[in-house]
Amino acid sequence: MDILRIAQAQINVTVGDLVANTDKIIRWIERAREASADVVTFPELALCGYPPEDLLLKPKFIRDNWTMLEHLAKQCKGITAVVGFADSEGDKVYNSAALIHEGRLVGVYHKIELPNYGVFDEKRYFEAGSGCLVFEMHGMRFSLTVCEDVWIPGSMAEKFAVDNGTDVVLNISASPFHAGKLTVRHQVVKLFARATGTTVFLNNLVGGQDELMFDGGSLVMNPTGEVIASAKRFEEHLLITDLDVDPSASTRTDRPGRVFHLEPAGSESRGWIQPTLAPDLSRLDEVYKALVLGTQDYVLKNGFKKVVIGLSGGIDSSLTVAVAVEALGTENVIGVTMPSEYTSEGTLSDAGALADKLNIQLITVPIGKIFHSFLDELKDPFGDGPLGIEAENLQARIRANILMSLSNRFGWLVLTTGNKSETAVGYCTLYGDMAGGFAVIKDVPKTTVFELSEYVNQRAEKELIPRSVIERPPTAELAPDQKDEDSLPPYDILDPILQAYVEQDRTRDEISALGFAAETVDEVIRMVDRNEYKRRQGTPGIKITPRAFGKDRRMPITNLYS
Amino acid sequence: MDILRIAQAQINVTVGDLVANTDKIIRWIERAREASADVVTFPELALCGYPPEDLLLKPKFIRDNWTMLEHLAKQCKGITAVVGFADSEGDKVYNSAALIHEGRLVGVYHKIELPNYGVFDEKRYFEAGSGCLVFEMHGMRFSLTVCEDVWIPGSMAEKFAVDNGTDVVLNISASPFHAGKLTVRHQVVKLFARATGTTVFLNNLVGGQDELMFDGGSLVMNPTGEVIASAKRFEEHLLITDLDVDPSASTRTDRPGRVFHLEPAGSESRGWIQPTLAPDLSRLDEVYKALVLGTQDYVLKNGFKKVVIGLSGGIDSSLTVAVAVEALGTENVIGVTMPSEYTSEGTLSDAGALADKLNIQLITVPIGKIFHSFLDELKDPFGDGPLGIEAENLQARIRANILMSLSNRFGWLVLTTGNKSETAVGYCTLYGDMAGGFAVIKDVPKTTVFELSEYVNQRAEKELIPRSVIERPPTAELAPDQKDEDSLPPYDILDPILQAYVEQDRTRDEISALGFAAETVDEVIRMVDRNEYKRRQGTPGIKITPRAFGKDRRMPITNLYS
Repeated sequence: MDILRIAQAQINVTVGDLVANTDKIIRWIERAREASADVVTFPELALCGYPPEDLLLKPKFIRDNWTMLEHLAKQCKGITAVVGFADSEGDKVYNSAALIHEGRLVGVYHKIELPNYGVFDEKRYFEAGSGCLVFEMHGMRFSLTVCEDVWIPGSMAEKFAVDNGTDVVLNISASPFHAGKLTVRHQVVKLFARATGTTVFLNNLVGGQDELMFDGGSLVMNPTGEVIASAKRFEEHLLITDLDVDPSASTRTDRPGRVFHLEPAGSESRGWIQPTLAPDLSRLDEVYKALVLGTQDYVLKNGFKKVVIGLSGGIDSSLTVAVAVEALGTENVIGVTMPSEYTSEGTLSDAGALADKLNIQLITVPIGKIFHSFLDELKDPFGDGPLGIEAENLQARIRANILMSLSNRFGWLVLTTGNKSETAVGYCTLYGDMAGGFAVIKDVPKTTVFELSEYVNQRAEKELIPRSVIERPPTAELAPDQKDEDSLPPYDILDPILQAYVEQDRTRDEISALGFAAETVDEVIRMVDRNEYKRRQGTPGIKITPRAFGKDRRMPITNLYS
Repeated sequence: MDILRIAQAQINVTVGDLVANTDKIIRWIERAREASADVVTFPELALCGYPPEDLLLKPKFIRDNWTMLEHLAKQCKGITAVVGFADSEGDKVYNSAALIHEGRLVGVYHKIELPNYGVFDEKRYFEAGSGCLVFEMHGMRFSLTVCEDVWIPGSMAEKFAVDNGTDVVLNISASPFHAGKLTVRHQVVKLFARATGTTVFLNNLVGGQDELMFDGGSLVMNPTGEVIASAKRFEEHLLITDLDVDPSASTRTDRPGRVFHLEPAGSESRGWIQPTLAPDLSRLDEVYKALVLGTQDYVLKNGFKKVVIGLSGGIDSSLTVAVAVEALGTENVIGVTMPSEYTSEGTLSDAGALADKLNIQLITVPIGKIFHSFLDELKDPFGDGPLGIEAENLQARIRANILMSLSNRFGWLVLTTGNKSETAVGYCTLYGDMAGGFAVIKDVPKTTVFELSEYVNQRAEKELIPRSVIERPPTAELAPDQKDEDSLPPYDILDPILQAYVEQDRTRDEISALGFAAETVDEVIRMVDRNEYKRRQGTPGIKITPRAFGKDRRMPITNLYS
């Protein structure tokens, strides 16, 4: 035997579903064993899901997770497994990797570097580890790490790997997605691999959890920093990679430290498997797949089957319904068009055309009479003077009430259709178009909404989203002849300003220096700042940028900084 | 001169309002100087407000806060001041106390213990300090600490105070309120004072910031653990305390460490001021004051003047409106009653009686016709079969739409009226009664709502909240003859179960062991767990219990743990 075979189980688990997650881990251990793997790894906290948030503060949750780990360990025969779970010692909880061999828990590694920035709150829950866990198999020396451990140049994990003469670093991760993140991840792992002279196996999580998307893309990187194998993205994958074993290594005695010596499991007769590389994805590919899987996981993991979406005939709802159909199937998506006196012939017929092309059920509920019944009752309290924003919001909230009524009657989840640009500047109605269970394109800037709509049509090789929808100037249709650009800068100006302000914390002067009019920048910043109260009550949606609204950006509502 | 005079400026600042906060600090320095104080302290992060959250990630915010500190220091003559601000060194930011003397920044202390639990995220923003800052004045040795530094037994701050022979520990705090917290705070400071043999001056913040209430109650505790002076709670206060100076101390040379020697400022002619003790508050006193100040600060700091509240004739809206009137004045509170066919004569007349007694404007907008216009348009999509929850929620959302329309037309902030019990179990309508800008009694259990309503009447020495409101069995009045207890356990059973589950993370078995039926406990836990999605879109409201919903309790929505 001159190979060792490592399987990385890139699985999709559900937070808190300890029994189902454990069952899945056991099934994938079995799959890896059937593939004659010597070692199989699982993602960070695979057993309890990531991030479990304040479930980790419940002592019984930690105990139950331990019970499932012990159950799982007993089932694990004929292979060595590395499984993410939450270890505890007294009151302390550790983000951990269990090393399991022949039905026995051999050792536990505690994550050393705890991220507490961006979407991460790990110092709220975990103590930092301080030791290493090393095992030797067929002369190869492995050490365990968890996610962030390989992200910090000069970290203890790096030092341990070097000092222990490690050949292979097994890293179990739950590294969340944003567009372009895979490149960042590769760069980071390359630095670690080169600094330590090790081969790094990074086993990432896949699947959606509330606002986070884990994109998979598990990988194997050699000591010179080349990716030699990679898993598919946005789907489960058992990535199998054979390692050449240096026959002389097993006799080396120059390596210090406490080491578990484990027997490889694979049969001698197995042949060398050529490593596989997943195809590259374009930026639009990966964003689209993130939206689809994020929607699918939120809907199904929360026990829903069908979704309902208000179709305005605009591009945001068109893209949302296209994503929903891809995620859930045509039979599980219901469109509702709710025309008013301000609805144009064009948008109304586009909503119908879209429903036709996507082959979904379409319900029509006009809002004119309801709108006027409100205005009748509000005549006295409103008093004299023309109607303004209150009449616009009233219509949006009538539509929300209709969608929620259908949701309550039939158990359909309402998907909202707001994009990041309008969420940022508050060009949306709280309890109106913001109302619903999941906000599919919440973190997608409007300019990207246009690109994705073209992409959807190209991908389908037909016009799923009508051309007239893509070409019509954006409008909320809540007042006569209304256009977004009456209230907002053009989106190709708004979006880069938003990116600079929201994602990069640049100042107004720095943004102006990029070539935008100072008064435009000021107005955009003012709109972003004063609409924090709306976003605080906003619907959760999928993070696809480096900084999404939500726990990624925690601004006070009461805030007079300017 | 045989005294040193210490002033603690318990001020109410606004997050981000650097200029106004600095102006206020300068004014209170002047007040303290006029009172012949030698030293004046301010709360933690007084200059930028607490907690500034992700404003701290903006480099310009840190620079601006530095600019204001330098401006402030120049104005500070004839007194020594300790001011909370955000210091920085390169990319690192510290939660800091500036020591200012004669127009000059003498030194900066960096908070050592960074809380990262409960509502706190300080490790997201701050580096931990590792040094001490000591100054000597008239032979007395002072050291600086910030909030959490005195909360951890055996901490570095404790060791520094002992090793440096400190006489007086100045602690600047932003310690948030919950009912009973003052007692906890006293116990904690007592441990520190006794362990270090020092007199501790704890200068707390006062005022509301989004969901947090800072209750003031600044104090001076002697080395034996007695409170010798205390500031009022829930209001600004300049607490002045004279210290006897040991004339021999100034000649002591046995104390190590780098020490700033500062001159006292007070005139020799000043007489000894008797220390003052603020009156004790009962549990209902402090909760009521927290609700009033929290409402006032949220409304006014966010630039609103008037609020609008839906009056159902029930106890929740009655208490909310009473609090709002106390916080904002009768002329700034508008009640809206929105009767339906399910509204009883009793509740309708009670809403009117309440508005009369509180002398507020009352608007009536019946919802029957609007409700039926919705049902007409939804007849086809709903199909056959009796109406259920969808019709109930529809009414609640019509009412929300009316309140929001008035808000949008007149610029009134909508106050919601939901209590903690119904928020916990989801007995409320998303985008319906949950819709609004601020949720006054969001963290108040229903049983406490009853107690507070009696308290309001006792305090007013008249029946502000009609007796019939207090005595009527709670009902949502969204269906014929509906009572809360048709859907929920009685509140005197529900509330202790919720407290055990939500605030104490107890398991179902532990809660049953307290004497509750297992099936009731199971049902309550199930309701709490499955309604996380509603709370995620809920309105911010004032924390008054040890664990409020919001950033105090971060549960995943997608969560299959049971």
